[in-house]
Amino acid sequence: MLRTHTCGELNISHLGQKVDLCGWVQKSRDLGGTTFIDVRDRYGLTQLVLNTDNDDTLRETSRGLGREFVIKVTGTVIERTNKNPKLSTGDIEIAVEAIEVLNAAKIPPFLIEDDTDGGEELRARYRYLDLRRNPIRNNLVLRHKMAQEVRKYLDGLDFIEVETPVLIKSTPEGARDFVVPSRMNPGEFYALPQSPQTFKQLLMVSGFDRYFQIVKCFRDEDLRADRQPEFTQIDCEMAFITQEDILNIFEGLTRHLFKTIKGVEFENFPRMQYADAMRLYGSDKPDIRFGMQFVELNDIVKGKGLGLFDNAELVVGINAKGCADYTRKQIDELTDFLKRPQIGATGMIYCRYSTDGTLKSSVDKFYNEDDLTNWAAAFNAEQGDLMLVLAGQTDKVRKQLNELRLEMGSRLGLRDKNTFAPLWVLDFPLLEWDEESGRYHAMHHPFTSPKPEDIDKLDTAPGDVRANAYDLVLNGTEIGGGSIRIHDRALQSLMFKHLGFSAEEAQKQFGFLMEAFEYGAPPHGGIAFGFDRLCSIFAGLDSIRDVMAFPKNNSGRDVMIDSPSTIADAQLNELKIKTAL
Amino acid sequence: MLRTHTCGELNISHLGQKVDLCGWVQKSRDLGGTTFIDVRDRYGLTQLVLNTDNDDTLRETSRGLGREFVIKVTGTVIERTNKNPKLSTGDIEIAVEAIEVLNAAKIPPFLIEDDTDGGEELRARYRYLDLRRNPIRNNLVLRHKMAQEVRKYLDGLDFIEVETPVLIKSTPEGARDFVVPSRMNPGEFYALPQSPQTFKQLLMVSGFDRYFQIVKCFRDEDLRADRQPEFTQIDCEMAFITQEDILNIFEGLTRHLFKTIKGVEFENFPRMQYADAMRLYGSDKPDIRFGMQFVELNDIVKGKGLGLFDNAELVVGINAKGCADYTRKQIDELTDFLKRPQIGATGMIYCRYSTDGTLKSSVDKFYNEDDLTNWAAAFNAEQGDLMLVLAGQTDKVRKQLNELRLEMGSRLGLRDKNTFAPLWVLDFPLLEWDEESGRYHAMHHPFTSPKPEDIDKLDTAPGDVRANAYDLVLNGTEIGGGSIRIHDRALQSLMFKHLGFSAEEAQKQFGFLMEAFEYGAPPHGGIAFGFDRLCSIFAGLDSIRDVMAFPKNNSGRDVMIDSPSTIADAQLNELKIKTAL
Repeated sequence: MLRTHTCGELNISHLGQKVDLCGWVQKSRDLGGTTFIDVRDRYGLTQLVLNTDNDDTLRETSRGLGREFVIKVTGTVIERTNKNPKLSTGDIEIAVEAIEVLNAAKIPPFLIEDDTDGGEELRARYRYLDLRRNPIRNNLVLRHKMAQEVRKYLDGLDFIEVETPVLIKSTPEGARDFVVPSRMNPGEFYALPQSPQTFKQLLMVSGFDRYFQIVKCFRDEDLRADRQPEFTQIDCEMAFITQEDILNIFEGLTRHLFKTIKGVEFENFPRMQYADAMRLYGSDKPDIRFGMQFVELNDIVKGKGLGLFDNAELVVGINAKGCADYTRKQIDELTDFLKRPQIGATGMIYCRYSTDGTLKSSVDKFYNEDDLTNWAAAFNAEQGDLMLVLAGQTDKVRKQLNELRLEMGSRLGLRDKNTFAPLWVLDFPLLEWDEESGRYHAMHHPFTSPKPEDIDKLDTAPGDVRANAYDLVLNGTEIGGGSIRIHDRALQSLMFKHLGFSAEEAQKQFGFLMEAFEYGAPPHGGIAFGFDRLCSIFAGLDSIRDVMAFPKNNSGRDVMIDSPSTIADAQLNELKIKTAL
Repeated sequence: MLRTHTCGELNISHLGQKVDLCGWVQKSRDLGGTTFIDVRDRYGLTQLVLNTDNDDTLRETSRGLGREFVIKVTGTVIERTNKNPKLSTGDIEIAVEAIEVLNAAKIPPFLIEDDTDGGEELRARYRYLDLRRNPIRNNLVLRHKMAQEVRKYLDGLDFIEVETPVLIKSTPEGARDFVVPSRMNPGEFYALPQSPQTFKQLLMVSGFDRYFQIVKCFRDEDLRADRQPEFTQIDCEMAFITQEDILNIFEGLTRHLFKTIKGVEFENFPRMQYADAMRLYGSDKPDIRFGMQFVELNDIVKGKGLGLFDNAELVVGINAKGCADYTRKQIDELTDFLKRPQIGATGMIYCRYSTDGTLKSSVDKFYNEDDLTNWAAAFNAEQGDLMLVLAGQTDKVRKQLNELRLEMGSRLGLRDKNTFAPLWVLDFPLLEWDEESGRYHAMHHPFTSPKPEDIDKLDTAPGDVRANAYDLVLNGTEIGGGSIRIHDRALQSLMFKHLGFSAEEAQKQFGFLMEAFEYGAPPHGGIAFGFDRLCSIFAGLDSIRDVMAFPKNNSGRDVMIDSPSTIADAQLNELKIKTAL
């Protein structure tokens, strides 16, 4: 090793030791005969002190040093007069005898400090420099630890990590595939997996019985703010189990991660029906760090002459505790928030329950004090509260009120990044209606098993069929989802039929799986976690980008290596493809 | 869980317990009133005994069972009268009260047993059934354990596993890339990584200092018997180290794996110069499970009138201990082996040192008893030995003799799969001459550092420049290779120039790396192991296929899922590409 110690490990117990350190120059202060240099590596920061009065070489070398130069220093650990309690090495410094410049550095395009002056684009272009900053590096160290703990937990339960192929087969169902032209099979293409779904099911047919994999998956989608074309899943599958077993084992995984990584233990790990989540939170991924549950008002508010309410399928509201003193401006802000096109509400009704006990609404023409007292009772509102009410078509108004609830949660400081509230959402619908294609789609995927007691509704009321499907939600974000799978050829064929597959299409795309079901497929089910998202929540970040070493931008580009790029005609010719711009 | 126990865990200590087991019917014997069924899962085999005399349901169900049916049984653990010491469950059986068929099975196309009757193609087509067989499943369990132990060892040494991107940039250097058309950037392509080489070097520039990753890599090559288009590497990189540090740490990894997985501890972990490996074994990956080192004979054999020897650049041989009694037929077999086109020798000279003390060669016309006594002395031959000699151009004759040595090693039983002999081969040449392109290529890759003391030979004698490059060899197979890298822009530019890159090409392909070297790149180096190969050696297999869950065939096809395949015109249109067949 070029070093005897790292820049993070020396302390008072090393006094008098001769050491070699390597690292990057964080900063340098020349005080005449004495120069102080902070040298940094992944493990910490150590102060060097150079007495340059009688050492020309040392003086020259130290004067030539710039920020981010890579140096090797030899010296002796001495006690600092001016201790820095914020640093693990803050009690000592190194009296330097020799400095060797291992590599010079140009002045970096932005500050390599916890708070940097670099904009997003510049930092992406020089990602390798951004990765030197503690907050970013710490995210990747956290990610490493989490992956290790996931493996430790699952290995301890006899799960086997099996690598499934990356070059697989394209299937039109689901999101868009990335494809890979095959040179050896001209005119044919591999696809990159959106998930190892069919392979893990085949492993169950093979008797592996407890499988997992931390695995890259790929989706060629237009990238929204927080999507990446390649992302990582913790992918799991089990045989001979019920839904209850999966919930318990992966509640266990979640608890294990929180305990070992963050020292957090959950008293409760609640479960909620999908139907209840929609009714009480207007979302299949409720943020239950705070209450503010929906209150449905149809029975109370209808029939008083207010067309907005009378004509609405659903009148529903939330109680914003302690917000009765919201100004007209604050209320208008909320209304504007709701009217943005991405939310699309037409307006908001409110009712103040003032601290003086009076009730005043924005629809006082239609509702007298008695009526509003009924409202307050329904909302469980107290003096000082503000009731916010929306009306309209059920699905739409629930979505809008969900947004309002989250906004109010944020405004009231109820969504603390250091508070964690996990939740299982259960019994998702099997199918969802797609307006665009005019047919039902699988809500989860086509391999999800309907609840046995609902199978006979497949023909009569497909939208009412529930699935043995579950999501794990954390702080209002879906971090995992899974289901009990179909393991019977006939039922799988029936599902494909209901999803609009012709028999030929089903056979061409998934014939191998349906055939496998005929050779002794055990009952099985599983779950997959979005590992990037999970890491970002653990890191207290809003974006998944900073828990990835080399993310791509919203156009799917890596601006550091400048990829994608054109390729040589010879390559295209070998692959027997042409670009058609 | 549908079961209380697995099929591998019940023993005499469970007598009297009521249990539920799930698994596959291995076989069934109906002895009139009593039926015996072996039920199998991943963990083992348990015998069921069914008294069907008084239970019509049980009789009907058991008669309906075929091989590979998936069943759930409920019963009581009882002691066997006829114990089977070969099975962990051999002391007990289950007196069955109820059987539930969880899924029926068609008769499998081949026997699901350790020795199967299925041919390679059939087993590939039904890979999910082949994976049910113990030997195949055990390979994947072994692989899982090895991956866990690799991670445990490296994590313990502060290595961080960082996921590098799969969608990267195509570079013409090296093997052929798989490419991925970018829909969002029409006319441009990603490439799948042949290794994360540049990314791991950038992580060193970022100060990560100890990186590893168990990672899929891709090469679009014509597949030889034991190549796969996607394969897995244990990829590692370290900063602030010397070659010696890397050798020690990864010797440690190898020792750790052998100790924890196979209970093998090595006394020696030898090292050899590349030049010596070529001289003594004719190979850069000598199998040192046995000696039979090359003996060079130029000084002894030349000048006696045998043109074959006199005109040869090198006359070199091996001593096949105890083979003096080889028949003419056996010798002819060896000669034919050497004359095969893939080896290409023109012939073989031999000299028997019979047990009666006489020396007799195939070139007795030119060499008398005294000459042959000199041969025997050079070979350290004793009575009963057989000396085998080849002559020709140095590189070629060494390759040929290497093949002969390995063949003789196999014939003499010196290459036992349960004996393990690791070896570091050091100081590889930096460059190798490529006849086809008429220029030097990087022997390892363009980022390998020349030995500082050899840099001045880059212009005068490029072929003599040695690199700080090393391979880890196990039983004659390269399982890992690496080098100290260049970390200086000027030297990297010089290397690209010597490899025939124009300044523009170098900039276009690797500009980001060379730029990174200007911002404080530390000295660094690393290694990558072929994980599939390592697993196959641990499993005692010749092929890597059976340590992969879903391998592809020699045409790069997955015959189970029938991939690659054609894709829809709509997909091609979106990607702005056309096939050009």
